[in-house]
Amino acid sequence: MPTKKELLQAQIQHIDIKQHNVVALVDAMASMAYSSRDLARAASIYDMMLRDTECGVILCLAGSMVSAGLQKVIVDLVRNNMVDAIVSTGANIVDQDFFEALGYRHYIAGEEYKYGAGDAELRDLAIDRIYDTFIDEDELRICDAATEKITNSLETRPYSSREFIAEMGAYLKKNGRTPENGNNDSIVLACYEKDVPIFCPAFSDCSAGFGLVAHQHARRGKPVVSIDSAKDFYELTQLKIANPTTGLLMLGGGVPKNFAQDIVVAADILGVEASMHKYAIQITVADARDGALSGSTLKEASSWGKVDLTYEQMVFAEATIAFPLIAAYAYHKNGAAERTGKLFAQVLVEPVTA
Amino acid sequence: MPTKKELLQAQIQHIDIKQHNVVALVDAMASMAYSSRDLARAASIYDMMLRDTECGVILCLAGSMVSAGLQKVIVDLVRNNMVDAIVSTGANIVDQDFFEALGYRHYIAGEEYKYGAGDAELRDLAIDRIYDTFIDEDELRICDAATEKITNSLETRPYSSREFIAEMGAYLKKNGRTPENGNNDSIVLACYEKDVPIFCPAFSDCSAGFGLVAHQHARRGKPVVSIDSAKDFYELTQLKIANPTTGLLMLGGGVPKNFAQDIVVAADILGVEASMHKYAIQITVADARDGALSGSTLKEASSWGKVDLTYEQMVFAEATIAFPLIAAYAYHKNGAAERTGKLFAQVLVEPVTA
Amino acid sequence: MPTKKELLQAQIQHIDIKQHNVVALVDAMASMAYSSRDLARAASIYDMMLRDTECGVILCLAGSMVSAGLQKVIVDLVRNNMVDAIVSTGANIVDQDFFEALGYRHYIAGEEYKYGAGDAELRDLAIDRIYDTFIDEDELRICDAATEKITNSLETRPYSSREFIAEMGAYLKKNGRTPENGNNDSIVLACYEKDVPIFCPAFSDCSAGFGLVAHQHARRGKPVVSIDSAKDFYELTQLKIANPTTGLLMLGGGVPKNFAQDIVVAADILGVEASMHKYAIQITVADARDGALSGSTLKEASSWGKVDLTYEQMVFAEATIAFPLIAAYAYHKNGAAERTGKLFAQVLVEPVTA
Amino acid sequence: MPTKKELLQAQIQHIDIKQHNVVALVDAMASMAYSSRDLARAASIYDMMLRDTECGVILCLAGSMVSAGLQKVIVDLVRNNMVDAIVSTGANIVDQDFFEALGYRHYIAGEEYKYGAGDAELRDLAIDRIYDTFIDEDELRICDAATEKITNSLETRPYSSREFIAEMGAYLKKNGRTPENGNNDSIVLACYEKDVPIFCPAFSDCSAGFGLVAHQHARRGKPVVSIDSAKDFYELTQLKIANPTTGLLMLGGGVPKNFAQDIVVAADILGVEASMHKYAIQITVADARDGALSGSTLKEASSWGKVDLTYEQMVFAEATIAFPLIAAYAYHKNGAAERTGKLFAQVLVEPVTA
Repeated sequence: MPTKKELLQAQIQHIDIKQHNVVALVDAMASMAYSSRDLARAASIYDMMLRDTECGVILCLAGSMVSAGLQKVIVDLVRNNMVDAIVSTGANIVDQDFFEALGYRHYIAGEEYKYGAGDAELRDLAIDRIYDTFIDEDELRICDAATEKITNSLETRPYSSREFIAEMGAYLKKNGRTPENGNNDSIVLACYEKDVPIFCPAFSDCSAGFGLVAHQHARRGKPVVSIDSAKDFYELTQLKIANPTTGLLMLGGGVPKNFAQDIVVAADILGVEASMHKYAIQITVADARDGALSGSTLKEASSWGKVDLTYEQMVFAEATIAFPLIAAYAYHKNGAAERTGKLFAQVLVEPVTA
Repeated sequence: MPTKKELLQAQIQHIDIKQHNVVALVDAMASMAYSSRDLARAASIYDMMLRDTECGVILCLAGSMVSAGLQKVIVDLVRNNMVDAIVSTGANIVDQDFFEALGYRHYIAGEEYKYGAGDAELRDLAIDRIYDTFIDEDELRICDAATEKITNSLETRPYSSREFIAEMGAYLKKNGRTPENGNNDSIVLACYEKDVPIFCPAFSDCSAGFGLVAHQHARRGKPVVSIDSAKDFYELTQLKIANPTTGLLMLGGGVPKNFAQDIVVAADILGVEASMHKYAIQITVADARDGALSGSTLKEASSWGKVDLTYEQMVFAEATIAFPLIAAYAYHKNGAAERTGKLFAQVLVEPVTA
Repeated sequence: MPTKKELLQAQIQHIDIKQHNVVALVDAMASMAYSSRDLARAASIYDMMLRDTECGVILCLAGSMVSAGLQKVIVDLVRNNMVDAIVSTGANIVDQDFFEALGYRHYIAGEEYKYGAGDAELRDLAIDRIYDTFIDEDELRICDAATEKITNSLETRPYSSREFIAEMGAYLKKNGRTPENGNNDSIVLACYEKDVPIFCPAFSDCSAGFGLVAHQHARRGKPVVSIDSAKDFYELTQLKIANPTTGLLMLGGGVPKNFAQDIVVAADILGVEASMHKYAIQITVADARDGALSGSTLKEASSWGKVDLTYEQMVFAEATIAFPLIAAYAYHKNGAAERTGKLFAQVLVEPVTA
Repeated sequence: MPTKKELLQAQIQHIDIKQHNVVALVDAMASMAYSSRDLARAASIYDMMLRDTECGVILCLAGSMVSAGLQKVIVDLVRNNMVDAIVSTGANIVDQDFFEALGYRHYIAGEEYKYGAGDAELRDLAIDRIYDTFIDEDELRICDAATEKITNSLETRPYSSREFIAEMGAYLKKNGRTPENGNNDSIVLACYEKDVPIFCPAFSDCSAGFGLVAHQHARRGKPVVSIDSAKDFYELTQLKIANPTTGLLMLGGGVPKNFAQDIVVAADILGVEASMHKYAIQITVADARDGALSGSTLKEASSWGKVDLTYEQMVFAEATIAFPLIAAYAYHKNGAAERTGKLFAQVLVEPVTA
């Protein structure tokens, strides 16, 4: 049995799309079939979104994408004005991105661990596994503690996850966790600096949840910091109202997909006739046949009045292959040249008094 | 093109497990291979959970299961003391179960609609589609409005989703939406009456979210009802602490799976050495190979210290086939005969002052 | 490490559909959604096929279905005039069915072997694994040798796989491998006795292939027994011409699906305007999105003029769950009551002189 | 409704890996997770195969890969000594590659056809559909006729599919269907010229099957050309014996995967202790959980003594994305620089007298 140190050797390295000009490759895929053609069309729709300077680009993240080596792709999109808002699971943002921003890393697990053969031993070593990736659980507990520390520093009131995550960005900045100081760049930090709001609609379902529970437990009977998921929804809807043309760039499905799609209906309920999402791309291997939202087609979303049919594309592919290709294509096509960030966080910067 | 009325004719009928004794069938599957054997083992683990009278059974629901005809299965499990807490997506509980409790129905869509051929026309008719199922969007808006009405009736403070859903149960009771009055029985009502708490960790991501946004918008600048997802997490963790032996019965993955698994760690963070979930079953067609939680094995969860390896079983099957078989097996085996409900809602009935 | 004997203890038991009346259960599924509704419709289409006494029912078998506990289901369908021809992979017919007819068994593998953790040790023990099932490789070699023995007994000329498999049936009969003598009933034997032809279009791709190669090697330079796959195709096409109304009952996809569908086109090429397959059911978890035939929809087959659109149904389910339900439904509905077997083998009994 | 001409406008274009140097991109994927890492490892294993000059590389093709734009990739691998034998479904070789070599093309189908909405109309227009690709059925019938013509030109005796396909290569050459004459290059032609044998173990299950059936029907009662699938198996086994070090490069599963793996056992049966396949790569989206061979892990194959565990890699990806990346990686790494083709067809060129 290897030691913990032996198991946590090979680090996940985040791919740098700036180094890989795949424009010709992806363009060639446009005249093939199956996933390659769909990928090429999705890439060209993303390029269209960026050239449509009215369009606010909402990136939706489900699954464990940051731990898988996609952190830098997302940071690069944010820093190059190619994403205006993020809706994510908490795991990507807190357990993985903020965690790496604190200086910790994810590790490559050997093939033999993929299917669970070593999980009992990993448990004993306090190594957590995500499919073929390892995390040091002790480091994750330090991350939990950091979120508790941030929570304790806040005025006790309901916060949207967006507000809380902005505080996490400020924390990184204040504590010098910046690339200038030799740290890894992070999504939380880049979004903080670029006024790109991040929403985690199920925010307690991650490392921050542990910090929040510890906070609420320590202060039971007293006023506490709380996370108002309705406020998240209200805020994202306000962005849709402020910037009616929108496009969705989705990795996986789950809550982020549903949440981002739903703002069209929410705007309608607030009396604003909002247009459907004009563009929508989803990368997923989920199957439509179990009726679940994750694999449901974007056409289905159009029956709900959420997504327009003209520029939508599902890509049947695992995201660590497909997303670098799509993002690198859009980056090297330079469709965002004329584009400035939407600074959506500023739209919301006044404590929304809902 | 058919009319809306023509399209909304054939109602989804909820299967009644009490009518189908599948014990011999499922027992026969135990000596076969692949999904049949896994299903049989999962069914026997559920039976074990029920015979272990210490065990609190947590049902996790992702996907669109209630609209698919599984409402009555779940109601029957609740009314027969076979489920002690529910963690769900909002859609199952509000858009589908509460919606049906209000008197509305889901409809069978023709095969030709499954893959999106008619979605533009459905949009024009205000018919929403879930794969092969139709919903009248006008009725869904009435459901949204009911959640707004409930929200407006509440004292303005942060609520856990559990507290809010209990109010929905009270609303159904108060308004006579009960089987005695000829209404469909509902999960929300049955849980209300049986003190089974329901948690929706991403609660604004459903029909209730629309009601909450409308409420917060109408009262912007004033105190509002908010939904504290951290409180949800804290409450569910308290149940784990109060009743250390637990079993998970999971349909699909997503946030409910993650959330329910995480309470083991959360208890630990509160200084209580909690045992892992002793039993765990998951029915899913999700694939492990995209690294997402939904398809991740229960063995993987054991590396995180969340699920014990001894009695865990994944079942690779679409839930509308597998869940009635497993639930009917457990019902007709009568393993819950010695069991009383855990009345978990009473553990939490004092407004938790976190 | 367990011994070979310890690993080969628990036998796969073949489910007996005659013991499980699932008519009410499956009928209830018809008003649900997703796979349950599709399964119910598939079952009712199979029932229709049987009541349409003109219809010749062609069962297509891919995957490892016999080793998984479905042998008896298929035997029961054959013996009750519910199947008129079989198109299969060689593995199901030779390595699994004929193998069991020789007295050998398949074994239940522990969950821990499913994902390959013990494969190196299994190799050392000469235990072959099919996912969660074990086979004694030494016994399989005896099966290979039996096919060589049969081959050596034949006149040297090209045979269709159908002819060869009929010889295997005769071998079982001659050697007293019959239920009357206390042996397991087998598909090969039942089909032999009921004049149900079995085709394996890729016949050398199984245990029989080993026997044939050994035969051809031993007789190199001399006339040999050969397996003419074109003759298979010609024979099956003749059945389509002789009995124009046909229905397909397919487990999995692969070569059997393609081969059976193609006879409509082949008849056309022979100048006979053949009707498309009037009924078609496929149980599969294969995905349409990789463009492969196995997951391709039956609608796609209709574009090729192979399958009629009116009575076709794909069922997204693993076959060990879905097929017993569909077969038991059809058996207990007794739709075959008025039906006699088509005795298709007799149509071909004269050595086809092609 | 569009006309046939309108529907058959946009041609599938075959991707040219020589134009896309993806070495850095794929190398970057080696330190990521999930499919990207697996793809990178598969690419490096293919590179290793090529640098191991002892190794005979066997390419296995299932699914509809040639129609999807992968013809040129395969031609380039053959012409650059990167593939020594091919085992394929008949569709790829005859209906798709030989078909294009005759001058016909595959066409891009609009998104709206993917799920079968237009199949009845396509039927009326004699347009066949493969997921998102169209074929002119009238042209396919000409292809069928060409195979009949070739069949009729042959001496009547049993042929391996390998022998028959070599005749198809000769036919293309004789009839000037060569790149020098401005024709598309083809796999059948390139393999013919490079002495790379092609095996289709289920050969009648394709366009050639129609030609063969027509031939056998026209000559019924007289000696005919037959296709001996046992001879295929014997021949491929001879190659394994002649060149013991082998590697498998597999697109999809099905019969080609099984057939190529089985030759290790077949050699053993002939008394030659053959080494397992030293290298094995498979690209597939098939799931292991239905127990079928297509999705079964290469570890499972090692329990059968067919594939060595050291250098094996499954890649969970649709092949039109993954295969160009892997092939382009190997091409631009130039690992085949020291390699000459194995000229396996010459090993078999004497009519094998089995």
